[in-house]
Amino acid sequence: MTFRIFTVLSLFCYVSAGSLLAQDSSKTKHSGSILGFRESRTAEERQLESKFDSFLSKGDLPVWLKRLSARPHHVGSPYDKDNAEFILSLYKSWGFDAKIEEFDCLFPTPKERLLQLVSPDTFTASLQEPPLAEDSTSNQTSEQLPTYNAYSADGDVTAELVYVNYGTPKDYEELDKHGIDVKGKIVISRYGGAWRGIKPKVAYEHGAIGCIIYSDPKDDGYNEGDVYPKGAYRNEHGVQRGSVADMPLYSGDPLTPGIGATKDAKRLSLSEAKTLMKIPVLPISYGDALPLLRSITGPVAPSNWRGALPITYHLGPGASKVHLRAMFNWDIKPVYDVIARIKGSERPDEWIIRGNHHDGWVNGADDPLSGQVATLEEGKGLGQLLKTGWKPKRTIIYCAWDGEEPGLLGSSEWVETHAEELKTNGAVYINSDGNGRGYFNAGGSHTLEPFVNQVVHDVTDPEKHISAWEREKDVALLYGSEEERDRAKSGRDLPLDALGSGSDFTPFLQHAGIAALNIGYGGESGGGSYHSIYDSYSHFTRFIDPTFDYGLALSQTGGRMVLRLADADVLPFVFTPFSDVVAGYAKEVTKLADDMREQTERENKLINDSVYALVADPTQTFVVPKTKDPVPFLNFAPLQNAVSTLQESVKDFEKARKSMNDNSEIYSSPDQLTKIDDAVMRMERALTTSQGLPGRPWYVHEIYAPGMYTGYGVKTLPGIRESIEQRNWGLANDQIVVVAKTLEGYAGELKQAQALLKSNN
Amino acid sequence: MTFRIFTVLSLFCYVSAGSLLAQDSSKTKHSGSILGFRESRTAEERQLESKFDSFLSKGDLPVWLKRLSARPHHVGSPYDKDNAEFILSLYKSWGFDAKIEEFDCLFPTPKERLLQLVSPDTFTASLQEPPLAEDSTSNQTSEQLPTYNAYSADGDVTAELVYVNYGTPKDYEELDKHGIDVKGKIVISRYGGAWRGIKPKVAYEHGAIGCIIYSDPKDDGYNEGDVYPKGAYRNEHGVQRGSVADMPLYSGDPLTPGIGATKDAKRLSLSEAKTLMKIPVLPISYGDALPLLRSITGPVAPSNWRGALPITYHLGPGASKVHLRAMFNWDIKPVYDVIARIKGSERPDEWIIRGNHHDGWVNGADDPLSGQVATLEEGKGLGQLLKTGWKPKRTIIYCAWDGEEPGLLGSSEWVETHAEELKTNGAVYINSDGNGRGYFNAGGSHTLEPFVNQVVHDVTDPEKHISAWEREKDVALLYGSEEERDRAKSGRDLPLDALGSGSDFTPFLQHAGIAALNIGYGGESGGGSYHSIYDSYSHFTRFIDPTFDYGLALSQTGGRMVLRLADADVLPFVFTPFSDVVAGYAKEVTKLADDMREQTERENKLINDSVYALVADPTQTFVVPKTKDPVPFLNFAPLQNAVSTLQESVKDFEKARKSMNDNSEIYSSPDQLTKIDDAVMRMERALTTSQGLPGRPWYVHEIYAPGMYTGYGVKTLPGIRESIEQRNWGLANDQIVVVAKTLEGYAGELKQAQALLKSNN
Repeated sequence: MTFRIFTVLSLFCYVSAGSLLAQDSSKTKHSGSILGFRESRTAEERQLESKFDSFLSKGDLPVWLKRLSARPHHVGSPYDKDNAEFILSLYKSWGFDAKIEEFDCLFPTPKERLLQLVSPDTFTASLQEPPLAEDSTSNQTSEQLPTYNAYSADGDVTAELVYVNYGTPKDYEELDKHGIDVKGKIVISRYGGAWRGIKPKVAYEHGAIGCIIYSDPKDDGYNEGDVYPKGAYRNEHGVQRGSVADMPLYSGDPLTPGIGATKDAKRLSLSEAKTLMKIPVLPISYGDALPLLRSITGPVAPSNWRGALPITYHLGPGASKVHLRAMFNWDIKPVYDVIARIKGSERPDEWIIRGNHHDGWVNGADDPLSGQVATLEEGKGLGQLLKTGWKPKRTIIYCAWDGEEPGLLGSSEWVETHAEELKTNGAVYINSDGNGRGYFNAGGSHTLEPFVNQVVHDVTDPEKHISAWEREKDVALLYGSEEERDRAKSGRDLPLDALGSGSDFTPFLQHAGIAALNIGYGGESGGGSYHSIYDSYSHFTRFIDPTFDYGLALSQTGGRMVLRLADADVLPFVFTPFSDVVAGYAKEVTKLADDMREQTERENKLINDSVYALVADPTQTFVVPKTKDPVPFLNFAPLQNAVSTLQESVKDFEKARKSMNDNSEIYSSPDQLTKIDDAVMRMERALTTSQGLPGRPWYVHEIYAPGMYTGYGVKTLPGIRESIEQRNWGLANDQIVVVAKTLEGYAGELKQAQALLKSNN
Repeated sequence: MTFRIFTVLSLFCYVSAGSLLAQDSSKTKHSGSILGFRESRTAEERQLESKFDSFLSKGDLPVWLKRLSARPHHVGSPYDKDNAEFILSLYKSWGFDAKIEEFDCLFPTPKERLLQLVSPDTFTASLQEPPLAEDSTSNQTSEQLPTYNAYSADGDVTAELVYVNYGTPKDYEELDKHGIDVKGKIVISRYGGAWRGIKPKVAYEHGAIGCIIYSDPKDDGYNEGDVYPKGAYRNEHGVQRGSVADMPLYSGDPLTPGIGATKDAKRLSLSEAKTLMKIPVLPISYGDALPLLRSITGPVAPSNWRGALPITYHLGPGASKVHLRAMFNWDIKPVYDVIARIKGSERPDEWIIRGNHHDGWVNGADDPLSGQVATLEEGKGLGQLLKTGWKPKRTIIYCAWDGEEPGLLGSSEWVETHAEELKTNGAVYINSDGNGRGYFNAGGSHTLEPFVNQVVHDVTDPEKHISAWEREKDVALLYGSEEERDRAKSGRDLPLDALGSGSDFTPFLQHAGIAALNIGYGGESGGGSYHSIYDSYSHFTRFIDPTFDYGLALSQTGGRMVLRLADADVLPFVFTPFSDVVAGYAKEVTKLADDMREQTERENKLINDSVYALVADPTQTFVVPKTKDPVPFLNFAPLQNAVSTLQESVKDFEKARKSMNDNSEIYSSPDQLTKIDDAVMRMERALTTSQGLPGRPWYVHEIYAPGMYTGYGVKTLPGIRESIEQRNWGLANDQIVVVAKTLEGYAGELKQAQALLKSNN
């Protein structure tokens, strides 16, 4: 489901690291040592990787992509199951121990959809994406899911229409200034600005009774480029389907939070399921939106609210009234995860997990199959290696998830079902999703930043024949902020993004506390097929990655990561970049409070001094905002002290590690190595708490979470940051203590891990 | 012709000042002393101003506006002359010594206009603004000037079309990167980004053979608000007429640069006139532009080039070919300036000049008549004061300029004709133009900054019943940059904008070296009638200033300025704000060179390191830019030393002045006061040089000029700043010396003026 937004920049992180063993360098090396490997094993590992590369064949990718995208394959469809079985057969043929794990999840589909403008004019929205002669799968009308938002409420409402821009809390503050209340109204929001599920949630919180979401051509249509089928971009009929479950509360089946949605699982009733949207929601095309938006009267929308339709955007309410009816079949549908293992020969209880979903909203060639076929190719390569006699030290698990689109169903239910094993065995999860032409991009746990940098140094960009790392660095030099440019110039490791949500890494990282990565290529393959019937083989091979070169690059990247993680002497976590980013986040939240304090003082003064009132145009409605409570000084000391403790323990650990070399006694003690692995792979778990985040106990990671009001966008130190943003000062002070304790616990565990290094030095 | 762009902020300046006499305050006082007046005369002056206010009658404004805008009144039209005679009769009736001064200027009008898309489709542009039932003067088709750009070349060209965004030099650098050359092509540019005359000039410099300029609805149309006649904004047929003479070279009649275009003046031939455009140019509506822009192929335009038409903006060239034919009657037309005087009773050779043009492109209700009727009201008020026995100390001259629209013809020719008298007698020129609802806004000579602040403290905002100064300050508090907010918070004087061009202040300030101001109200009266047939009485009274309250506010403001300037004991120039802004400008140009040096180094490194090449998408044409010569270190020392000298002399002068009081001997010596006036009013002349600016000797002011490539936008320290921008390092070093000498000469003259103060202390 990841919406392909490559901010151009995004790779990885700024502090250097040596390899786990005996390296001392301020930059992760391109060649030479490999993180986690003894020097003496480097050549062997590089040879293995070359062999792996030689087994990869670009020609498989279009064949599999065509096969998997030949028919609509959403959750519950015949072809969804068919694809799962096909993927299963492939993994089996390559020698994996593979099976399908099935879950039963709530997956509503539309029974009735109606959207009408009832005044001042009448108009009935088509709610249809027409087949195109240029796109051979676009005419599979009987199998396509209609355009809808999954987990919308049933509803039949008629009310005045209000335009709410992106529908974020800030947008409602703007409406307040215009004296516009959405209570009892239907809102129309454009896609973008936040994850789609945020829009109806915030609308509901403000009293709206229905929500329409449309794709504005400014953000997703002709303003971006020629539209399909002439070009890659969304045409006037294209609709973005998608889930509107309240996923920032929990992902997975709405009826089984925290437990696997197995056949006999205890399920919530629909009314108990907190992630179901409370009002009817419907996504529409800009063709359908135009008559609605054109009919709205009231104040002209602020300039940054205006899209690219040839109209004056007004806020409403007024003359424009719409009738919205949306009724659903509230069915439980089977979800088929394909789980394929290669058991570890030395440390079978350390799991290196690699995943990509296989379900699509319709034909899903780009999202998710472009990533899926790359992971299949990795699987094929590993299978070939097995045939040469290679055996991974650690267990490798390839997962093809089902039900990602409605809400990370397959991955979440699998993680919840296997929670206990994962707690003990989960080492690293590597995710991908749609993949395209361009630059490498990664987000994830910052302990893996040097590892990722090193891998991408060893993958060649297919267009420019330099390393993928080099090209990403060049992108930073050209388009980066001053800070990003400086870092790129220094040659230091490129930064990993912090992960929010939007794909299957979420249950691993944020619910199970397993170090995770999300990887992919993109940036040169724009387009607007996302979640429409036009996300097809035809569209993909014309506009996204016609030569499949970047599909192969992803196989080389993901496969290399799996190989290194599976075979390293010690898991290649490096802790310095992590303590550095946490120190940075701590400064950010401190500054956030300071900035809010200053902003509140300024704003209150403007209000109290009547500045707003005296400037406002008397011919326009303007409601002066209310003053806000002043921002108190929070006690950040526990956090600051904990960060110091963390930094100290990281420094000590890395120092101890650097004093080791190939001759260290440790290498003659497999047990000791396993203990070290065990200790370092538990470190990510040490960032979780049993009580979880405020108001959403399913999310237990104290460093990374999707934002309550961003949905996909990350909030780092979420407990603290969101309490401040929501002006809940008491909670903020409490959360500072929670995070501080977590970091101190982490530092303590790292000290114990260090003891393991020392005792064998 | 001023395009109403209120950047919301713009008032006046940051250093405080005392009155010329015996004040010592860091803020120009709201009440109490009046700059230039002895304390003992304050009450009398305030009484006079109250009386003046009481003579003003809002009811006159709509009557005159309706009468003057009743028919099209462009240069050479019967109604233009009729209006001039009407204005003359008014001033005469009020007791002014008034006459019409006539000049004969080149004013081409269209003979033939044709614009056709010839491939891939065919389409003929309408080039018409249709009459509207809702606008009673819009049907005066036979008297309306067709839509055209004055001083376009005759031409008949057919060529491929290239979209050039705003058509500024920076836009052509972007085209270069896409490998697009406009040589032999016709360019289509949207209005905005720079003055319209810049677009064909830069197009010609790049080899284009024709230029089309259209109003994009993003900047000027439905994106801004509802279109006319429903709302105030430009509809799909509205066209912006306007001059495309190369006015940054000189303003006024193209055939008589530097001399008055009197009947017998020696005239250049058309081919000798450097300000005439070299290629045919035609302005069109967005309705006419849509089929042209839609037909363009080639690369998609960069995101910030895209307007609000419902298309994908492409750059071209390619399939799209157009035929442009524009032929003109190259006639000499009479220009009628109305000049109305009240002779000064004590110092008749000191002229306080107040002007606003009267010609319009069509009916011109907003531009310029909204300002014109306010100046007429001032004239009426002064006439009433005359009847009460009041006589101004200094001579007051009210001017209603003709021919401003084609190129400041009336004002420039008048200034050139009276150059010698103005050199001796010109004290201050106060300009206005279109006026609307909102906040006060002023630009001008910074020696007048405290004066302007003080006046606006004494005018009441009609909507909010606070001073116009207070409201403008509140606007700064709400919308200003951090620096502007801080200044507003401090309560110090608000800043005057530096003046570029775009209205009749240019010949006074930048050619004759007379301290000048440009004043007006606006910011709440948006709309898109500019230079179209829809700039009508009907449009104005619906959308711009329906109650004429801000017309009256302008009369109170302009009239009060004239009264104070005419009656002050000593002209109220204060030099501290001027030396402060010059010191700021000196820092800016130094930083400009430093920033360009850094930017050039960075850019050259990106080029030499192949970063551009390695990042570029290989499926798109991308031409790596050429490296540029490194930026040398310039010798700014002469400028820095001159600024120090200036600051010292200003400090001394202001100190000397502050030591004076009502009892100072000076007040018993009218001769001495005249000498001081004479000295301070010559100070602005001291900022001019005989050789003028590089390549444009008509512009002689070394501090303020319109930019060679901005047109209206100001360039401060233009000789230095533009040499640097154009990478002419030798010239930049020379110009630093020129400006330094000018400032030192200025400091020397100020020392002499100070001696006059001292000798009478």
